[in-house]
Amino acid sequence: MTRIAILGATGYTALELLKILARHPHVEVTALTTRQETRPHISEVHPALTGQYDLECEALTPAQVAERADIVFCALPHTASMDAVPQLLDADCKVIDLSADYRLNDPGVYEQWYGHVHTDPTRLNDTVYGLPELYADAIPSASLVANPGCYTSTSILGLAPLVNAGLIEPTGIIIDAKSGVSGAGRRPKLGTLYSECNESVTAYGIGTHRHTPEIEQVLTDVGGAEVQVAFNPHLMPMDRGILCTMYPRLKQESSVEELLAVMMDFYRNQPFVRVVDHIPATKHVAHTNFCDISVRLNRNQLVVFSATDNLIKGASGVAVQNLNLMLGVDSVTALI
Amino acid sequence: MTRIAILGATGYTALELLKILARHPHVEVTALTTRQETRPHISEVHPALTGQYDLECEALTPAQVAERADIVFCALPHTASMDAVPQLLDADCKVIDLSADYRLNDPGVYEQWYGHVHTDPTRLNDTVYGLPELYADAIPSASLVANPGCYTSTSILGLAPLVNAGLIEPTGIIIDAKSGVSGAGRRPKLGTLYSECNESVTAYGIGTHRHTPEIEQVLTDVGGAEVQVAFNPHLMPMDRGILCTMYPRLKQESSVEELLAVMMDFYRNQPFVRVVDHIPATKHVAHTNFCDISVRLNRNQLVVFSATDNLIKGASGVAVQNLNLMLGVDSVTALI
Amino acid sequence: MTRIAILGATGYTALELLKILARHPHVEVTALTTRQETRPHISEVHPALTGQYDLECEALTPAQVAERADIVFCALPHTASMDAVPQLLDADCKVIDLSADYRLNDPGVYEQWYGHVHTDPTRLNDTVYGLPELYADAIPSASLVANPGCYTSTSILGLAPLVNAGLIEPTGIIIDAKSGVSGAGRRPKLGTLYSECNESVTAYGIGTHRHTPEIEQVLTDVGGAEVQVAFNPHLMPMDRGILCTMYPRLKQESSVEELLAVMMDFYRNQPFVRVVDHIPATKHVAHTNFCDISVRLNRNQLVVFSATDNLIKGASGVAVQNLNLMLGVDSVTALI
Amino acid sequence: MTRIAILGATGYTALELLKILARHPHVEVTALTTRQETRPHISEVHPALTGQYDLECEALTPAQVAERADIVFCALPHTASMDAVPQLLDADCKVIDLSADYRLNDPGVYEQWYGHVHTDPTRLNDTVYGLPELYADAIPSASLVANPGCYTSTSILGLAPLVNAGLIEPTGIIIDAKSGVSGAGRRPKLGTLYSECNESVTAYGIGTHRHTPEIEQVLTDVGGAEVQVAFNPHLMPMDRGILCTMYPRLKQESSVEELLAVMMDFYRNQPFVRVVDHIPATKHVAHTNFCDISVRLNRNQLVVFSATDNLIKGASGVAVQNLNLMLGVDSVTALI
Repeated sequence: MTRIAILGATGYTALELLKILARHPHVEVTALTTRQETRPHISEVHPALTGQYDLECEALTPAQVAERADIVFCALPHTASMDAVPQLLDADCKVIDLSADYRLNDPGVYEQWYGHVHTDPTRLNDTVYGLPELYADAIPSASLVANPGCYTSTSILGLAPLVNAGLIEPTGIIIDAKSGVSGAGRRPKLGTLYSECNESVTAYGIGTHRHTPEIEQVLTDVGGAEVQVAFNPHLMPMDRGILCTMYPRLKQESSVEELLAVMMDFYRNQPFVRVVDHIPATKHVAHTNFCDISVRLNRNQLVVFSATDNLIKGASGVAVQNLNLMLGVDSVTALI
Repeated sequence: MTRIAILGATGYTALELLKILARHPHVEVTALTTRQETRPHISEVHPALTGQYDLECEALTPAQVAERADIVFCALPHTASMDAVPQLLDADCKVIDLSADYRLNDPGVYEQWYGHVHTDPTRLNDTVYGLPELYADAIPSASLVANPGCYTSTSILGLAPLVNAGLIEPTGIIIDAKSGVSGAGRRPKLGTLYSECNESVTAYGIGTHRHTPEIEQVLTDVGGAEVQVAFNPHLMPMDRGILCTMYPRLKQESSVEELLAVMMDFYRNQPFVRVVDHIPATKHVAHTNFCDISVRLNRNQLVVFSATDNLIKGASGVAVQNLNLMLGVDSVTALI
Repeated sequence: MTRIAILGATGYTALELLKILARHPHVEVTALTTRQETRPHISEVHPALTGQYDLECEALTPAQVAERADIVFCALPHTASMDAVPQLLDADCKVIDLSADYRLNDPGVYEQWYGHVHTDPTRLNDTVYGLPELYADAIPSASLVANPGCYTSTSILGLAPLVNAGLIEPTGIIIDAKSGVSGAGRRPKLGTLYSECNESVTAYGIGTHRHTPEIEQVLTDVGGAEVQVAFNPHLMPMDRGILCTMYPRLKQESSVEELLAVMMDFYRNQPFVRVVDHIPATKHVAHTNFCDISVRLNRNQLVVFSATDNLIKGASGVAVQNLNLMLGVDSVTALI
Repeated sequence: MTRIAILGATGYTALELLKILARHPHVEVTALTTRQETRPHISEVHPALTGQYDLECEALTPAQVAERADIVFCALPHTASMDAVPQLLDADCKVIDLSADYRLNDPGVYEQWYGHVHTDPTRLNDTVYGLPELYADAIPSASLVANPGCYTSTSILGLAPLVNAGLIEPTGIIIDAKSGVSGAGRRPKLGTLYSECNESVTAYGIGTHRHTPEIEQVLTDVGGAEVQVAFNPHLMPMDRGILCTMYPRLKQESSVEELLAVMMDFYRNQPFVRVVDHIPATKHVAHTNFCDISVRLNRNQLVVFSATDNLIKGASGVAVQNLNLMLGVDSVTALI
């Protein structure tokens, strides 16, 4: 059994990780951390886990974690992650980092979007970006995997086949993204109160959302030419799910059938991306690791749809998919 | 035009008050307070009010408020209210207090349930309880009206006709109350985050909810004999609305028709209580000042239903109903 | 008192009309129709209206309606409306038609999008399009007003100032529209069941939604040049509210401040359009007749936001706004 | 691999069954039925299942089903089930019936509550009631298992330990039950439209809900004395989940600790019933086969809580739990 630790066990990402790992036959969760000094039992923090783990959340140092675990999921806020990750790696742990700290290759871009100097910049180029549909070859041998953002992977999975095939203009791609509230985390804030979000739809972070450079970096890598997107996230009155409705410009006329064929070909052996004829709905992928994608033409305007569960395929599910690749086991283990 | 101030303008109760007062022909809102020193415009605090009021929320003292207003709605947290109210009254303002501070007659009961010594105990017996369906005679001349709690008025309006007619046992009344999340206020807390409340139903405050003694006090006053209830509040995944499903014991056999007739008679001239044949639903009263009540028999067990909008009939609507009585205008003014 | 009838009283549009008309001082509702033969009381059809109207829904002919009413709101399905309207007009009723039957000027366009031959084509050019912010001059004297679609007016109100000022390219305007479920009507369908819509976001009617030609017709009228839009509606898990996020191309560089100034100037004396600094949210306009609009720039891409309550400003509220113009009373009557 | 068929594959129960069976290592789904003649692919009926099953829904006779399957889940409406089940059993299939047809022992009680004469009455006494926490001994060898109703199992699991221990009065037990909308099925009805249920709470079926005799029958069997309940179901604005808040009368004073100890003892080796200290919330059990139970005392009134996911522990999950017992495999297979 591979020993697993989760740093930052009190959030929604950790909750979903623990639900998935409870049915994973090859791992054992051995350490959970929190910054609280009170050592709450994980069942108090997440009553949904009652009876499934007999573990306390402890204020452990990275060194203490490394003694107990072989692979560490790091579910810390950004900047906290780049403090802990170097120590874990030095202690020979492998790390799957769910924060944003190791996703961007360029420390200058990190500083520009996150407002912090990156304190571990030399490692950025050695990090593997944890989107298995694109980087499956590099993940098994990686010691540090940067797990993608939820909007990011949803957007990328829809656009990558078209960018890769050179069918769409790389710039001016409009992404209208719609997310459930759990993506905003579990820290109490006015904006994520039930009575503020329910029965309401609004946009936020227009032009400033931090998943923008991540989408651009990966799609540029996929297509060769520099990709530029206008990313427009919206908050939906639902727990979970992301639907990205994306409006790229076709380079030349194409049919829905041709475009779907390109997508199917691109994801031929991928168990978690489903190219569908119907328009994806977040409900069809909720509580699963699937990403459903499709396209439509609206009076010459290409419309690309991509739907995921933001906490599963957008965070904890893909993290376990990465774990499976690192363990060398079937990539669907614990994920169906 | 009567000049109106609202103390504590940043919460949901104040928002609903301001929406209602915007269509009130006899009043003008002249002052809004907050403890914040930044003087936010009311449109920043409540964007829904954009263009309707050109007022800032100011950190005013009660004396400053009294200079600008004739009648003050006090939407402060409990204990803050009993600091401000005496000063307002001394300055010849009339006060409609939406906190719990002046609802209970007995300062000992207040201390027992709220955990604070009452600092203005002598005024408790002079205060009028602001449930117009029961105390309409006393409200017009009152200088201090204690506006009822939301669960309280919903429960009382359903039970009062039966208690008054002596048809039910006064003790052992089970109240299973279901409320939307807005009743929990606008201060960010883990328990009222969207991702915690949505897709979930649970109970809270079993045996300790502070509306318990208030229900008992008023129903005891209505019926003469001491009423005792087991009050069990539940949180529902919706913005607003309370449904109280109440299980009193009938003293002797009775039919649904007879019981509805008693209710109709009791509320004969009340514009806001609707005795209905169907089972009330919170949606039917949402965004209104109506309280819908009905009864059913379930194998000899009496079931009494009462539904309100917790922010309107449960708080701000009934406050304006009280205001109308104090102003001597039609009690439905601004409320239909 | 002007006598009012509502044809098709069982739907959500009629319910909202009746709620608004209950506080209208200048009208009396005198007839309600349904195709059911059972003459249900309006309180059975809409329990929320209990006690507010003592009227049955009757299977009346247009001639019978005309005997009882001066102005008729026609809330029938499309095609049913163009059967009834000519008869009502011939009997000297004025009509506010909430269906789509008289919105399009060109019967060929109607046939293309609705799949039915228009049976009253000659009247199309005499009909006034009932968006008061654009056609207030023509409405007071109109005998037939075609009330706009909900997506339509939301989209148009956001774009009209920019189209009018020639600031955006008239073609290739992408509209990503998000609507609550009540827009889909009250007839039971699999797709609008709670368990299908809740916790889900999806798109529908891509390239085929019937509000497309209506948006194009009106904006073409506003700007002179032919407007062409790619309209992409999405279904949101909420009762009511539309947010249109719109992506037109700026003809030349402009700032958010300049664009907001153009919008404010365009709507200077309009009580129901609010040009706001913040990003509109449907919650801020829910249960009101307001339309909140704003703009942002996202890396050179203009983003226009427009939010309404689909049943109020998108249907019944604007219908009463039209009624007020026809009655010659203050246009905010019963709408604040 | 055991061959599995599902009769009535278009509903929510079948969808959840298929999701669970997709990760079951010992079975293969070989036939799905519908009354539609169009042979829709299961991915069209339930897009969430895209890529997981390559099966059409066929209008098969019970005999045709029996040729293809060893064990049949019967997810038909009541009365349809008692037509099909005898034929399946005669053809040597084992049957897990998710309808109500074989749950009640007495055909007279069935007729009284369901309004139909039972056409297969002699089999009622040979049927095993499929609540494994109570009848695990009989299930492995059963050829026909009557899967419990969702409200039923939730209510029973909370009350059974107290009834069994003789701690509560068997009559006059008030059950205030709160259910998500998916319990009402997938057939379009006005009452389950999103716009009717959302932002609303109401009660229904007071005194007439068909799960009443089922609860009484099982608890009577558990406790020996005749149990009588007042069952009061409520509809909540959420997809899934049931919370039963139950108010039995204690025979003699007891503490929360004592009562919890009795519950823990009763469910000592049950993997799916969790006796918890906190008040259960439906969110904690959503999408799981767990039932969380607890108790509180509210001024001498005992309050028992029980929460399940109505589609999993309340239907399809417990059906697979029964399947596992019939297969002789670990009872948590495919259910964690």
